[in-house]
Amino acid sequence: MSNVKLTVAFDGTGYQGWQVQPGARTVQGALIEAVAKVTGAKPVIHGSGRTDAGVHARALVANFQTDSRIPASQLVKALNASLPRDIRVLSASRVPDSFHARISAKSKIYRYQVYRGAVMPPHLAREFYHYPYPIDLESVRHGIRILPGEHDFASFAAKSGKVERVPGSPAQDRNTIRTLFRAEIRVSGKQLIFTFEGSGFLHHMVRNMVGTLLELGRARFTLPQFSELLQKRDRTLAGSTAPAHGLVLWKVKYR
Amino acid sequence: MSNVKLTVAFDGTGYQGWQVQPGARTVQGALIEAVAKVTGAKPVIHGSGRTDAGVHARALVANFQTDSRIPASQLVKALNASLPRDIRVLSASRVPDSFHARISAKSKIYRYQVYRGAVMPPHLAREFYHYPYPIDLESVRHGIRILPGEHDFASFAAKSGKVERVPGSPAQDRNTIRTLFRAEIRVSGKQLIFTFEGSGFLHHMVRNMVGTLLELGRARFTLPQFSELLQKRDRTLAGSTAPAHGLVLWKVKYR
Repeated sequence: MSNVKLTVAFDGTGYQGWQVQPGARTVQGALIEAVAKVTGAKPVIHGSGRTDAGVHARALVANFQTDSRIPASQLVKALNASLPRDIRVLSASRVPDSFHARISAKSKIYRYQVYRGAVMPPHLAREFYHYPYPIDLESVRHGIRILPGEHDFASFAAKSGKVERVPGSPAQDRNTIRTLFRAEIRVSGKQLIFTFEGSGFLHHMVRNMVGTLLELGRARFTLPQFSELLQKRDRTLAGSTAPAHGLVLWKVKYR
Repeated sequence: MSNVKLTVAFDGTGYQGWQVQPGARTVQGALIEAVAKVTGAKPVIHGSGRTDAGVHARALVANFQTDSRIPASQLVKALNASLPRDIRVLSASRVPDSFHARISAKSKIYRYQVYRGAVMPPHLAREFYHYPYPIDLESVRHGIRILPGEHDFASFAAKSGKVERVPGSPAQDRNTIRTLFRAEIRVSGKQLIFTFEGSGFLHHMVRNMVGTLLELGRARFTLPQFSELLQKRDRTLAGSTAPAHGLVLWKVKYR
């Protein structure tokens, strides 16, 4: 047996997210099928984390155990030949048995992409959230500076209470404390690009932070109110959830 | 009656090109329908030029005469509300009666987008031609320098002999002399971006120039052979036609 690490990019438009679900088209499901076809055995595939329906990835990481001795470079070609075009294996490599795509992850980087122009250009429509409203960018910049650090992010958790596990933590973990290493905003013409790097993220956390920051920019919150949000740990106080299609899992870092 | 100018962007993936054809989904057809719905009268819409099936546009220009007094800004919203999402009217304005989207055009800019990496990232797949072969970029750069100027581009015309009319020339015009103002290549990571600006283009001209330049980069032509191509005015000597989906009508300039 050997442990194989894959880096995977996908356009999430046509998928019900990462995780296998009966009767749904998922990225993990498509990968399991492709690996089974290429290696002859149905694998257990671990992903670096779940992504919601419609969320994209430039470089999600996954791993699986296999008996197959197919060289890694051939594996990339063979998997891509049997995967749909909106999922691509960018690279494959054999890694030590101790490597686990989720548990070994040190940090994840997400981007959230917003388009502010009046009319959404078709070539951006799949990956950008159209937000053609006046925004006070300075307020957003002030707000985003509050976020990095170790905090209880309960205010930005999904209402459903589903929580993504912290890498390395037990499966039962339901705490909402996370460490955000970096939270940035970059303006490029009519594009607004948010970047978040963290040890782990709660379900909907990035989309809720972005939705709330945009509402801060529209003066639906004051800066002190925004700051209080984090402390109050109450999801009902935060702003709306930005839509899935603007979110891109950008990179996963390992030790 | 007033003359309305539209700037239109579209993802050409799902269209049989610009020009109305019976039974086919075309961009011109979709615009005619939308304008008819908004103004109550079926318009004659002139485009800055035809685009082939699968070709994209960031800013194609069109114009039509209308009795409607709807303000231009409302027209943008109303048209986009009835157009499919992969076609967007970016702007509308009233222009002098003398303005004609094709005849008044001074130059057109096309981009051709190539991706050279081994695996095509899904987010680029719609607009980039996947060309994962070793290319001698210096050869391509030398070749492209030969192209600007007034030349008989017959060697780069479509085999079918269909020719796009020169702006301002009579409909019967079938000459293959065109003026290319600019032909450039830019490298950005694994992306290769060709830019061509000209007074007008023959059918398939950009795609044939790119196909031939890429083959020059792979040493299927020498530089002297490439240079002779232009002079020989014989389509059978040139390289292959690069696929439509890498081509983007980028801009149309007017006096």
